[in-house]
Amino acid sequence: MPQKVRIALDAMGGDVGASVVVPGAAISLTRHPGIEFLLFGDHALIDPQLEKHPALKAVSRVVHTDVAVSMHDKPSQALRRGRKTSSMWLAIDAVKKGEADVAVSAGNTGALMAMARFNLRMLRGIDRPAIAAVWPTIRGDSVVLDLGATIGGDAHHLMALAVMGSAMASVLFDLERPTVGLLNIGVEEVKGGEEIRAAAELLRAMNLPQLEYIGFVEGDGIGKGAADVIVTEGFSGNIALKAAEGTARQISEYLRSAIARTWRSRIGYLFARGAFKALRDKMDPSKSNGGVLLGLNGIVVKSHGGTDAEGFAYAVDVGYEMVHYDLLTKINQMLDGGGSALAQAPNAQEAVS
Amino acid sequence: MPQKVRIALDAMGGDVGASVVVPGAAISLTRHPGIEFLLFGDHALIDPQLEKHPALKAVSRVVHTDVAVSMHDKPSQALRRGRKTSSMWLAIDAVKKGEADVAVSAGNTGALMAMARFNLRMLRGIDRPAIAAVWPTIRGDSVVLDLGATIGGDAHHLMALAVMGSAMASVLFDLERPTVGLLNIGVEEVKGGEEIRAAAELLRAMNLPQLEYIGFVEGDGIGKGAADVIVTEGFSGNIALKAAEGTARQISEYLRSAIARTWRSRIGYLFARGAFKALRDKMDPSKSNGGVLLGLNGIVVKSHGGTDAEGFAYAVDVGYEMVHYDLLTKINQMLDGGGSALAQAPNAQEAVS
Repeated sequence: MPQKVRIALDAMGGDVGASVVVPGAAISLTRHPGIEFLLFGDHALIDPQLEKHPALKAVSRVVHTDVAVSMHDKPSQALRRGRKTSSMWLAIDAVKKGEADVAVSAGNTGALMAMARFNLRMLRGIDRPAIAAVWPTIRGDSVVLDLGATIGGDAHHLMALAVMGSAMASVLFDLERPTVGLLNIGVEEVKGGEEIRAAAELLRAMNLPQLEYIGFVEGDGIGKGAADVIVTEGFSGNIALKAAEGTARQISEYLRSAIARTWRSRIGYLFARGAFKALRDKMDPSKSNGGVLLGLNGIVVKSHGGTDAEGFAYAVDVGYEMVHYDLLTKINQMLDGGGSALAQAPNAQEAVS
Repeated sequence: MPQKVRIALDAMGGDVGASVVVPGAAISLTRHPGIEFLLFGDHALIDPQLEKHPALKAVSRVVHTDVAVSMHDKPSQALRRGRKTSSMWLAIDAVKKGEADVAVSAGNTGALMAMARFNLRMLRGIDRPAIAAVWPTIRGDSVVLDLGATIGGDAHHLMALAVMGSAMASVLFDLERPTVGLLNIGVEEVKGGEEIRAAAELLRAMNLPQLEYIGFVEGDGIGKGAADVIVTEGFSGNIALKAAEGTARQISEYLRSAIARTWRSRIGYLFARGAFKALRDKMDPSKSNGGVLLGLNGIVVKSHGGTDAEGFAYAVDVGYEMVHYDLLTKINQMLDGGGSALAQAPNAQEAVS
């Protein structure tokens, strides 16, 4: 484990770029004083922001580029235009060259995956990348993956997700043998498509020492904390995540308007302010910001494109923790342990073409 | 439109059966005095319940059977064991024979679909059934389908869902040309699998007079009310629904514990009780109970298996409304209008085998 955690930032990524990335990094630095930053992007945009955060400036080095991947570029366009020159590429490349331990970007997801895959290459036995994130549940936190990197995938792909997700859960939550559930539309054995049923059989038959397969979990099981790791292909994982986020926002909205309706409820709000603050903190989607790209020879963290500095700071925190707890080594150990089950190539389709 | 709405009930369906179904019907009857009920199931279980609800008893006829489909039967088992004899089959058969206008069951979803399909047959041009439900959003209600009847499906299947969902939205919400969105993992044209992109092209190219296609909608767009009709294949639809329900339950839980934490917040709660009641009403999942099986020559409504009488009453309400507003005629009109796009057979896989 390195003394200092060195984080490469795509300072041009996201809807706003440097004016969110730089203050976000500053917030994360207050929580993890052991970080050193490498910022890739336009000096003219980064420097004025850094001036406002002297502590950050003291541990940062800026590498200038004025090439940025647009949020609307197709992955193929991004690779063509931004390879070797864009802030996103350079941040990933710093990981490749060993100049940074992790790259964090709020840029275009498809482009980030394509560049990461092209430059870092996949781990042995893994064919397609996945995005994993921590999902707050009633019972604590769970790791959910894939949140949108790869659409579809056969039993071996789901198996690889189970192994990588378990590695992440075991380092993050300090678990010997995390429980793993497969997301499905019912808990009975006959439910779901062929791939899921085959993955269930495989997980049960292999009975890996690194994870405990507990069966199918339905969509409402995620929030119940039914398993430490919830595995699904990227389409349904993304839909689940966003449906949950949308519902949380919808309920905040209802709560706000219910409270504002009468003077009695407004008085009640004043008394219960602490409770509402606790609730808001629990529901704050920016706190679950930071998806980890798994399956690569290197760690890359994807932040929401539309997040604010507070949210970006959480993505930087995630990057810090992945390095601090040495996720990559753990995944490699697990893959070696998982062995031949992952040798066969999965049959999946990338999320974007 | 019939004077009286005649509803066939599978009185043995669901986790509890008659002790939820009968009081549920009684609640719905108070809201829709024009209902007549046909109850299928065990006299010994139904009659004592009916005695408690004289108004319901006065408009009900009980048809005895002691054969019930179990919640754990595979569809094929249910068909083999329960065909022509089970309460579920008989309720559907009443629709087939014209003795009832709609059948409502809280029984095993796979069995209900298999029996409905076997007995009622699919509408011309529709190959696989779908389950649609009303989803409360910030902007009002939307129709979301498929919630788990059919896994996967090509562009023509998604197109059929769009047409049927629009028919349902137009009768329920009194809209001339409901807006339709395809659920996807991004709004850009390049996102999602081939089928979805092909469906988008088809919907745009056909520019049907009965619906306005507005593009891709992400998971968090459902709760925002991004479109009157949200279309997706059954796996992701089911996951979205349950992830949203799970999140709502999780937030209720947080709110409850936040309120209970301090005396100040408990006092606040007393003042704001009305607001909390309004919120609970909004979030009450039983109010969205009642999935409509679409694509069949007849109307069948599926209630949650684990619902209470209040929840079952909402499913009966849904059945009432579908008949009252003549959904089936509207769907048939739309399918005739939709024409040749639906003539090709979709390429889908049933949710359960």
